[in-house]
Amino acid sequence: MTVRIPVEELQRFVATIFERAGLTGEDAAISAEILVAADVRGFDSHGIARLDYYVRRLEAGAINLRPHFRAIAETSSTVAFDADNGMGFPSAYRAMRRCLEKARESGICLATVRRSNHYGIAGYYATMALREPGMIGVSMTNATPLVVPPHAQDAYLSTAPIAFAIPAGKERPLVFDGATSTVAWGKIEIARRNREPIPLGWALDAEGRPTTDPFAARYLTPLGAFPELRSHKGYALALLIEVLCGQLAGGPWAKYVGGSRSETIGPSGTGHAFLAIRVDVFRPLEEFLAEMDDMLGQLRRAKPAEGAERVLVPGDLEFETEQERLAQGIPVHPEVLERLLEIARGYDVVLPL
Amino acid sequence: MTVRIPVEELQRFVATIFERAGLTGEDAAISAEILVAADVRGFDSHGIARLDYYVRRLEAGAINLRPHFRAIAETSSTVAFDADNGMGFPSAYRAMRRCLEKARESGICLATVRRSNHYGIAGYYATMALREPGMIGVSMTNATPLVVPPHAQDAYLSTAPIAFAIPAGKERPLVFDGATSTVAWGKIEIARRNREPIPLGWALDAEGRPTTDPFAARYLTPLGAFPELRSHKGYALALLIEVLCGQLAGGPWAKYVGGSRSETIGPSGTGHAFLAIRVDVFRPLEEFLAEMDDMLGQLRRAKPAEGAERVLVPGDLEFETEQERLAQGIPVHPEVLERLLEIARGYDVVLPL
Repeated sequence: MTVRIPVEELQRFVATIFERAGLTGEDAAISAEILVAADVRGFDSHGIARLDYYVRRLEAGAINLRPHFRAIAETSSTVAFDADNGMGFPSAYRAMRRCLEKARESGICLATVRRSNHYGIAGYYATMALREPGMIGVSMTNATPLVVPPHAQDAYLSTAPIAFAIPAGKERPLVFDGATSTVAWGKIEIARRNREPIPLGWALDAEGRPTTDPFAARYLTPLGAFPELRSHKGYALALLIEVLCGQLAGGPWAKYVGGSRSETIGPSGTGHAFLAIRVDVFRPLEEFLAEMDDMLGQLRRAKPAEGAERVLVPGDLEFETEQERLAQGIPVHPEVLERLLEIARGYDVVLPL
Repeated sequence: MTVRIPVEELQRFVATIFERAGLTGEDAAISAEILVAADVRGFDSHGIARLDYYVRRLEAGAINLRPHFRAIAETSSTVAFDADNGMGFPSAYRAMRRCLEKARESGICLATVRRSNHYGIAGYYATMALREPGMIGVSMTNATPLVVPPHAQDAYLSTAPIAFAIPAGKERPLVFDGATSTVAWGKIEIARRNREPIPLGWALDAEGRPTTDPFAARYLTPLGAFPELRSHKGYALALLIEVLCGQLAGGPWAKYVGGSRSETIGPSGTGHAFLAIRVDVFRPLEEFLAEMDDMLGQLRRAKPAEGAERVLVPGDLEFETEQERLAQGIPVHPEVLERLLEIARGYDVVLPL
């Protein structure tokens, strides 16, 4: 029996925990909103299942509770932020908010963030662009190394996720949020939990060989999975994201990003990059929206391949999950529930069941 | 016996042909330089093998020989160009040149081009950024539809290539140039020429089923190749590129882009997008270059997987090909040679053999 918790109550619970763990009320509220947004959209691996990870880092003093988040270099359409080892969620939120403001003024903005921490789902920040008319949002981050370049043996790159959100008129927007590795590590964890084999190509074992055993899996492959299916392209796209979030942002590059597997040890050095584009500096917004509608409508109503049910636009499944969960609440896996109850006890907070 | 032609002589030959086919001297020279650059870097599918395609379009009046290339909307860090159905190479070249100028002034620039034509290799324009210190260049284009979305039966998207160039200090730069489909159509053509099967996952037959027969291949798959290997990610990345080059640029979206398979019929409506980022508006350039060197050096000297020879950085193979061909000349496939000789005869030009 899987318990469900209403979204708002869950957010309030998480915010209270974060505040008692030392964050300011505002940072706790932003962090809770974004953490739970992962569950709302169906990214269960990135939501409350990871609350204990963030709490452990806060408790261990690995994260700066009162950071001085600031712009260290700025032009009319670029800005480089230093998050001062603050919590990833509010740092990224403030960076994207400013990025959108600047794009509104000058048409485009690229914002980087250095010295941040894990920021949850990349998609949250990209979809902030959809709150105002005619804005395209892109969000990227690095993380600890997990992905092995083609023909290599060791992990040098993170899963280097990228998310983007593109508005439409009558059609639902186009929203993608995913790792540039074949799968994110969360998919391996799910296979482990269900004791199911994984498709060949998702992961490599400790010796760098492809494996179907999720328990033997240690590293991930770049999108493309195999050299003959062109994994060098996933590798290249990951490198672009790594450079924007690492070298350009002014933080360490992927190999030196920490803090995900050694939860309680020091700053992670995580970096992010955000891009906002104001459509109407290129063409009238109505024209753009009409042509987005035409494309998205044709794709959504495209003839399915033999045996397939329907053709999807990126973001469609997440939108459907969101509708269902906003109405029915967030399902909490029994293992996750146990950890939430433990955290609740530790902070003397009632988990709203 | 494969003939080789020195690079400069081949450029001069191509420029003469383009000029006699009606382009201005300047446009002909730019077009020849970029077309032959494909051969120099080893993208044989995009070089002189396609000279007859461009010539046929010029001869048929499908391309405007005296276009009014102009900016139709501009801010300090964005610009939307209309190429007036001119030749793709000079249109894209001028757009990227202006994009780099504007990024030099304001830190970043996103430039779009509408009503252009096939622009050759995406990578040429990205690597223009490497001619000045501390500039990152990105180049994207759409083309005729060839790629089938996951679970669909028909092609809605182009191979939506993206190229980027990122400078380093002592190490060679990081340069990627590739389609966001598993492979470009040129790979199918090569397999046909060699009468060799293709790996399952590259292509679909007329009914949308995966095929290993290059002659049955009609459509391409998005990067990821199969839904279980996450082809929805290649699909999503292609969509982002399509939107920037189509809807944002103000031209048709992928499905309505023409001109590649019906060589002689009217404007193609091809669109491009270019991004230039000036590194030192984010951090001191020397720091960036040192960290790029560290990453690229570690990757190039990474321990290879069992059975693998070495680990590559995107662009390494192309760089090696470039060195070899600048010294030894461009090898011309017998079939291509025949067509070049035919074109040469038609325009009364001597092919430098």
